[in-house]
Formats: sequence, structure tokens, C-alpha cells
Amino acid sequence: MISLTELAELRSKLEMNDPDAIREILEELPPYDLRQFFFFIDEEQQKELLSYLSISKTAHLFEEMEHLDQKKQFMSLVPAALKSEIFREISSDDLADFLGEISQKEAETILTKLDQPEAENVRDLLHYPEDTAGGLMTTEYVHIMSEITASEAIDQLRRKAPDAETIYYLYVVDDSGHLLGVVSLRELLIAKPEVKIHDIMYERIISVPVDLDQEEVAKVFTRYDLLAVPVVDHNHYLRGIVTVDDVMDVLIEEAQEDFANFSGGGGDQGLFISPIQAVRKRIPWLILLLLIGLITANLINLFKPTTQKLPILLIFMPMIAGMTGNAATQSLATVIRFISNGELTKENYGKLLRQESTIAMLIGLFCSLFILGFISLSYDGRLGILVAVCLFFTLIIGTIVGTMIPMVLQAFKIDPTVASGPLITTINDVVSLMIYFGLATLFVQLISS
Amino acid sequence: MISLTELAELRSKLEMNDPDAIREILEELPPYDLRQFFFFIDEEQQKELLSYLSISKTAHLFEEMEHLDQKKQFMSLVPAALKSEIFREISSDDLADFLGEISQKEAETILTKLDQPEAENVRDLLHYPEDTAGGLMTTEYVHIMSEITASEAIDQLRRKAPDAETIYYLYVVDDSGHLLGVVSLRELLIAKPEVKIHDIMYERIISVPVDLDQEEVAKVFTRYDLLAVPVVDHNHYLRGIVTVDDVMDVLIEEAQEDFANFSGGGGDQGLFISPIQAVRKRIPWLILLLLIGLITANLINLFKPTTQKLPILLIFMPMIAGMTGNAATQSLATVIRFISNGELTKENYGKLLRQESTIAMLIGLFCSLFILGFISLSYDGRLGILVAVCLFFTLIIGTIVGTMIPMVLQAFKIDPTVASGPLITTINDVVSLMIYFGLATLFVQLISS
Repeated sequence: MISLTELAELRSKLEMNDPDAIREILEELPPYDLRQFFFFIDEEQQKELLSYLSISKTAHLFEEMEHLDQKKQFMSLVPAALKSEIFREISSDDLADFLGEISQKEAETILTKLDQPEAENVRDLLHYPEDTAGGLMTTEYVHIMSEITASEAIDQLRRKAPDAETIYYLYVVDDSGHLLGVVSLRELLIAKPEVKIHDIMYERIISVPVDLDQEEVAKVFTRYDLLAVPVVDHNHYLRGIVTVDDVMDVLIEEAQEDFANFSGGGGDQGLFISPIQAVRKRIPWLILLLLIGLITANLINLFKPTTQKLPILLIFMPMIAGMTGNAATQSLATVIRFISNGELTKENYGKLLRQESTIAMLIGLFCSLFILGFISLSYDGRLGILVAVCLFFTLIIGTIVGTMIPMVLQAFKIDPTVASGPLITTINDVVSLMIYFGLATLFVQLISS
Repeated sequence: MISLTELAELRSKLEMNDPDAIREILEELPPYDLRQFFFFIDEEQQKELLSYLSISKTAHLFEEMEHLDQKKQFMSLVPAALKSEIFREISSDDLADFLGEISQKEAETILTKLDQPEAENVRDLLHYPEDTAGGLMTTEYVHIMSEITASEAIDQLRRKAPDAETIYYLYVVDDSGHLLGVVSLRELLIAKPEVKIHDIMYERIISVPVDLDQEEVAKVFTRYDLLAVPVVDHNHYLRGIVTVDDVMDVLIEEAQEDFANFSGGGGDQGLFISPIQAVRKRIPWLILLLLIGLITANLINLFKPTTQKLPILLIFMPMIAGMTGNAATQSLATVIRFISNGELTKENYGKLLRQESTIAMLIGLFCSLFILGFISLSYDGRLGILVAVCLFFTLIIGTIVGTMIPMVLQAFKIDPTVASGPLITTINDVVSLMIYFGLATLFVQLISS
């Protein structure tokens, strides 16, 4: 990774105005470092920097940027004359993503400047939802026919190598574009030059349908350790490929999404966004939880006769509710992990529920004995028994709720991470307090009778 | 992905006892599918299956398994005579991981069966902590000298291709093993056959030190879109390479770890583990939270004079505490996301804190007005004002606590995800209830004076 010192050195070289020296360094800089440098210098220097970059390097810089920066900074700084040349160099998936972000009119203007087949490819990509295999794929892949020889294939590869997104897999198609098989460059190198592709190609090819969800695409990559996967339509025509670098971004994105869901609207935002936007995402959750809180308040109010007789009950209320929520969150996280690994099947439901119930019994027993001792010593033995019995039941119920809710949501095909911390905690508040005060009412009646 | 029908078909082929047919299918099966099949059939059939597999396919099956299955099922089923042959085929990183899991004596026995250089490589790998670049790397890479030509390099590659983990990057080293540069196979194919490696190699090479944390290694991959990265020691000797498939596993593992931390001990477990193990992981959190709950109970008890005068206060207690915790969790998730992206710098601290404070003010205002209206209508106007004012302050404090805690933890180099949902929620219980009852006491005094 480029250091601050290196960035400063590079900037002073830019200021010294030595075009040849600066060009050489810039061409060697990886795109990520180039972007770091671009945002390190001021606007005048950015303009100068762009004048030193080759077209392909400029395209790489563009690909590396966020959409907002592409629109705002990049487009205004690049000389209009060079724009279409640069767009021609940008890989089709990145270009389609960008065109999806700008107005349709602007997008059309850019598309007319591309060569016919390239423009068609990009137009195609624009149709697919962003979070599917089609939205991730690029059309810059290498395809060959099955009748040619290994050495002919290598020759073809040599010509296509500069443009292709990956050259390490060659996809074999028939005349009409059906996907027949794949040959890795590794196998091609090992093979005898005169052998035919159809004799060495791998026919049990792993491909993904164009509308497959990106999370599922990522699973295919991690299971089969792939560098790229071909994307096919419903007629098994090869439409593009998804490469592993895009899949890594998907893995990170999905993890952040789960995290955001689990925290009830926090977390899933750009670096610095407008507070209004953040509030809009967070408020629906908070209002929902507020309403449940008000219901809780009403329910507690119903138990007034009990709490008036035994007001000390109320001081353990946050503890009972909190513990139930915590136990539920632990179970919830366990079940969500099963689900996201794709390991939760209908056959497993019962087994997992039994496992979590056993855990709940053990945890309930342990915590209850602990609280029994504590309250008996510092308050009163009978109160200790009451609180301990309540804690035991609410912990078990919390665990079961935490286990069942994501299962139920999954059955309804709702992303279980939205069942999430805050929601489950708040629902548990209601349930646990009902048990607590219900048992307490029984208890008070028993004593007074 | 292999379907249940395909698995059943495959099993019936195995039962039909047609060695040639079954061998052909098995050799075409990707390792992941082979593993699925292995666990689909019974032990007798597993034995039979292994007898049909080639040595290299057996090694792949081994690499695909969990350590526990490697130890229990695999080792007992493979004929002893074949074991050393299989171990020789297993890639060095997977073998080292396995040897780290079994007893030292057993590991030594296996190591003596390997060829001398291979055994040394694996022994080397055993020294590195599992979650560092050294723990991830493999020694099966392709290295070349800088004086040879492109066509000579391709010839060398052809010979090494069957064993190497990746052949798509060739690492250039000097006589003593220092890393000098890298050439991609793509560049090699495009280059003129007679050009020397040192004229086309890329010297601004991105490498990682052997002791770099695996999370940082993953960041290098995602930033630079790499398929493999060379690992060097402190003298810049090339020690191995990390490949992208291992990095994808790291990304998944780290996301799960964060999730487990965030839920206070849930989630981060194997498929089905013993309940005792699960309880051991969860109990410390629950006891900690239980203790904080008891402190809360004591604190509420201190406000007895106030709550006796105004018992209705107590019914809003869970709502106040819950909302504070929810707002805090949202901020917490935002900050953790900044941290895990590596975007939170000292210069950003202030900016982020200001942003979250603005959000908190807006959220506080919104929720307070909502609750003011609600309580005024259904209970009492003065109570509405009291609860609304409290909610406003506790929401702001919750947000600030949620923002600051991970920042403070990061400053102390503690993983901020452990600050996590349950802990922050419980701490906020204490803080918010103190504010609530504190303000209420003030309020009661104002009214009665």
C-alpha cells in the first residue's frame, strides 16, 4: 500500500514538472494507489495528472472510483476530446454500472460514442439487476471453438489477452453461442500443441444462470475455488463471466448488509452521508421499537395490583428483560450463521431447536442459581426464588424465540438478519415481562391466600 | 452444485459395481461435489469410493474436508499403504493446517514420509500463527530467474504447472531468494519470445510480510484485485504465496467472527457442537450482563422516594432503556463499519462524532415529539413532557456512547465488535435509567415545592 511519504514524494515530482519521469512512475502505479494519489492532490494537480496518464491508465483510475466521484470529479476534469476514447477502454461491467447511475440521456450520448458491438454489450448489461450474476458479469471473456488445436487456442489467446478480463479460463462455445465446456490456461499449456480442444475441455462445467442472486454466486466461487465463472441464460447461451475480484466485493457488501440489518438500520451507509439520509434509515426501526415499548408500558400497567403490593419486583424488571434479549440474540446469531452457510435444512430444524433448548436449560439453570444466591443474600429469600424461577423460564423462552424467529422468516423467504438484535430484544421485553409479572401475581396470590 | 438426484444416481452407479464407469465420473467431479458425495454414502461405500479414486483426487477430497472429518473419517478409511503417497500430493498449506491439529508425534510420523524439501516447507509453515500471512500461504509457487527469456519461462512453467497452486503469476527471485519482481502469465504470453524477464517484469511488486494479520492480507487482495500475493520475510526473501481462494475464506471467517462478537458469544460455532461448549462460550457474557443488571436494580432502588410518589414512571422504564440501547447499536454499527473499512482515522474522529450527534439530535427530537403526543393523549400531559425530555437526552447520550466506545476500544487496540450489542445495551440501561429517574426526581421536587 502506498504510504503518505510516497504520496508526498510523488506530488513533489508532479510539481517539479518533469513529464518523462512522472509518466514512468504513474504507469507503474497500481490503480488503487493511483486513486489514492488522485485524491491526495488538489484540483489543479489532478488536471495535470490526467494529462500525463495513458488512456488505459485513465480508464483504470475511473474503474477504481466510487460512482459519486466518477460523476463529480472525474467527468469534469477529463478533456471532452478524450472521453470517448476512455469510455472505450473501460471494462463493460464498470461502464454499465456507471451508466446506470447517470441520467438516461447522458448514458445514451456515451453509448453512441462506443463501437457497435461494445455498445450492445453494455446496453445488455444495463438490463440486469445490480445484485444478480447478470449485474456482476463482464462481457470481456475469451471464447473459442471446440475444433481448434491447443496451439491455435494459445495464439487466439495472445491476441485477446490485452482486452480480456481474465485469460485464465477459455470458454468453449458452439456456432450459435451455447456453452460447451471450459479449458484452463494451465491445461492448455500442459497439453500437446496439436491436441484438439474438444479432447481436453472440461464438460462438467460450473456455470451460473444470469438471474442468480449475487450471494449465491459468491457461494459457488467459495465452494469450487474459482477465479471466474461463466454466466448463461435460460437457453444455456454464454452471456458473460463473473470474476473473483467482483465476488470479493460481494462478500464484503453482504457482510455489511447483514451487520446493518442486525443493528436495525445502522452501519450500512457511505463514508459521510447527510444526517437526513441516516435518520431516514434509522427512524422506522426506532418508531417501531418505540411503539412496542409503549405496548410494554401498558402491559406493565395492567399488573398494577401486583406491583403495588410488591414494588421491589419492578427494580429487577430491566434485568429480566435484558437477559432474555441477550440469550435470544445469541441463539439468533447461531441460527443466522447456519442459514447464511446454507446448512439449515428442514431436516435440521428439529435438531437445532433441540440443541438450543438444551443450551437454554443449562444457561437458565446456571443463571437462576446465581441470581437466587445473590438476591437471597442481599434482599430476601422468597424474592430470590421468585426472580430465579422467572429468569429460568424467560431465558428458555428467549432462546426459543431467538431460534424460531429466523427459521420462520426463512420459511417466508424474508432475510432473517432483519429479525435482528433490536426487534427480537424488544419483542422479548414484552414476553419476558409478561411471564415475570404473571408469575409474580400468582406468587403474591399464593402468599396472601 | 450437485443435486440430490445426481448424488443418488451416483450412489446407484457405485452399487452397480462398474469400476470403469464410476472412475470416469469421479475424476470429473469437482472436489466440493466429491465431498458432498462422500458424506452422502455410508461407511462401506466410502471405503469403496476411496478405492476408485486416483491419488491426486483423494488428496483433493482431503483438502476439502474439515479437520475433524480429516482426523476421524478419512484417516481410518484410507489404506495405510497409500497414506504417504496421498500426503505427498496434498498442498503444503493444507497439510500444515492438518498437522497443527493432530498430536506432535503423529505429525512427525507423517513428516518423515515426505520428501526432504517438501517436509521442510511444511515444517516451516507450521511455525506461523494460523491467522497471519504465513499461516495462509503455500509454498507451491512458480519462481524464475530474471536473466531467462519469456519463452524459457513458459517452458519452465509447463513443467511446474501440474504442482503449482497458481501458475498465473511468476515470481522473479535472485540467486539467494530475494523477491525482485513479478510477471503475469498474461504478460508472458503477449511478450516476444526472446525478450528477457528483467525487461518485462513488474518491480513495484505488492507483497505482504509473513506476520501480517489475515484481515490485512484480505484488504490487500480487495484493493489491488489480486489472484495471489507473495509473502516475504523481514529480509525480503520470498517464503510463499497466498492465493485468492484462501482469502475468500478469510473474508467469510472474519465476517462471522464480527457477527459472533456483536451478538455476545452466539453464532461463531461449528455446525452442531456439544451444548456444554456452546454454554461455555455464552455464559461469561450472560453473567457479566447479569451483574450489570443487578447493579441497575440497586440503582433503581435508590430512587425509591421518587418512584413511590410517581409509580407510573416505572412502566416507561423498559421503553426508555430499550430505545437508548437501540440508538446506540445503530451508531455502534456505523462506527464499526468505518473501522473495518480502515476509513476511521484520527482526523475523522471529530467529524464522525459531529455527524452522529446531529443525527442523534434529529432522532431525539422526532421520537420525543412522538412520545409527547402519545402519552399526553393516553395518560397525562405533564408525564408526557417528563418522558419526552428524558427520551431526548437518553437518545443523544446513547448515540454518543455507541459512537465513542468502539473508538476508545480501537485506540486500545481491542477489536471493537466485542463492545457489541449486548454489552453496550446493558451499559446504556444503567446510564439511561439514571437520567430518567434523576430528571424525574427533579421534576417531582419541582411539583411538590
